[in-house]
Amino acid sequence: VADLDDLTTRMREFTEARDWGRFHDVKSLTLALTGEVGEVAELVQWLPADGPAVDDRLRERLGEELADVLLYLVRLADVAGLDLGAEAERKLASNEARFPIERFRSVAPERS
Amino acid sequence: VADLDDLTTRMREFTEARDWGRFHDVKSLTLALTGEVGEVAELVQWLPADGPAVDDRLRERLGEELADVLLYLVRLADVAGLDLGAEAERKLASNEARFPIERFRSVAPERS
Amino acid sequence: VADLDDLTTRMREFTEARDWGRFHDVKSLTLALTGEVGEVAELVQWLPADGPAVDDRLRERLGEELADVLLYLVRLADVAGLDLGAEAERKLASNEARFPIERFRSVAPERS
Amino acid sequence: VADLDDLTTRMREFTEARDWGRFHDVKSLTLALTGEVGEVAELVQWLPADGPAVDDRLRERLGEELADVLLYLVRLADVAGLDLGAEAERKLASNEARFPIERFRSVAPERS
Repeated sequence: VADLDDLTTRMREFTEARDWGRFHDVKSLTLALTGEVGEVAELVQWLPADGPAVDDRLRERLGEELADVLLYLVRLADVAGLDLGAEAERKLASNEARFPIERFRSVAPERS
Repeated sequence: VADLDDLTTRMREFTEARDWGRFHDVKSLTLALTGEVGEVAELVQWLPADGPAVDDRLRERLGEELADVLLYLVRLADVAGLDLGAEAERKLASNEARFPIERFRSVAPERS
Repeated sequence: VADLDDLTTRMREFTEARDWGRFHDVKSLTLALTGEVGEVAELVQWLPADGPAVDDRLRERLGEELADVLLYLVRLADVAGLDLGAEAERKLASNEARFPIERFRSVAPERS
Repeated sequence: VADLDDLTTRMREFTEARDWGRFHDVKSLTLALTGEVGEVAELVQWLPADGPAVDDRLRERLGEELADVLLYLVRLADVAGLDLGAEAERKLASNEARFPIERFRSVAPERS
């Protein structure tokens, strides 16, 4: 499912079939999102900074955790009444305006 | 951009145009993701549990922060060599098998 | 160990005895902290908002995870060259000045 | 305040004087903790992995955010009915038993 709208529908149906909507308020879903990002962090925390990047085993586990992050993110946006694809579009356009190429080449945004 | 592949390409181009690839290792991107989820948490932390949900002003700010989470998530998956849409598909199918409707109706997964 | 300085010393000795200092840069420790906060979030995410608070089994598991958060926090402060107790003192004093009692009674800080 | 019990008392008094106890349930406080850890992550996310560590300006900002993490952590433990110092003691002893020096020297725990 590469389409965010399809993913949103699938997650909504998954939730409704189990009557889990009662658990899916914005605070609980944000905590669930936090939990999944925490699992990503645990996978990468001791990676050597300069070493070879992501091997197959780590990639597989990362894939699962990043999927969990995405599923809760899509669900949270839906519950909050947001169109996540439209928000991403808006944000990308805003970032492009905020960080003009000529000024920000090779400069990490926070330190500019 | 509701399509994750398009979003991935857009973010890759955005990054390369600014030569920011040097900052985008998996650990740094996971920290960036953590920072954005933290901003979502700050927006909802004191919401009354039983009150009216998300008003327009909060929705607008949530939209921005959820977009940031998505953009870093897409970027992190790309850097780790993952197809995020395929991972989400796999995870959804796995969740459907793991939480059969008849057994999990109205039962939060963690407490079953 | 209720004393932060003692805890700092204990963690430093624990780390040095295992030669783990090489893993304990500020980015890695922040990721470790994120992972532990994620575990706290997973424990509480589906708690009913209005239900009875924390039962004995949850309290026990929370105790373990909050201890992990504290240990990494103390370690991170040490690596960054910070006196965590002094920082807490300063922050408490600053919060007391920033949120005068008469103005903030019953008003969550973010919405004032 | 290097003593966790003193810090707990100070935070409890701070909260009660403003009648903020109503906001301090475990889910809200975990979200607040997440928000503060997110601010730490934002401060360190683009630090070069191999560069000079923490300069004075970063140290000062880190000190503030780590203090915020500690204050919410202490408050969360108090609300959950936990003695954070005793939990840290228990966890340290458990880690010492779990990671014997001779077996874990120079080996990051997750990869052993």
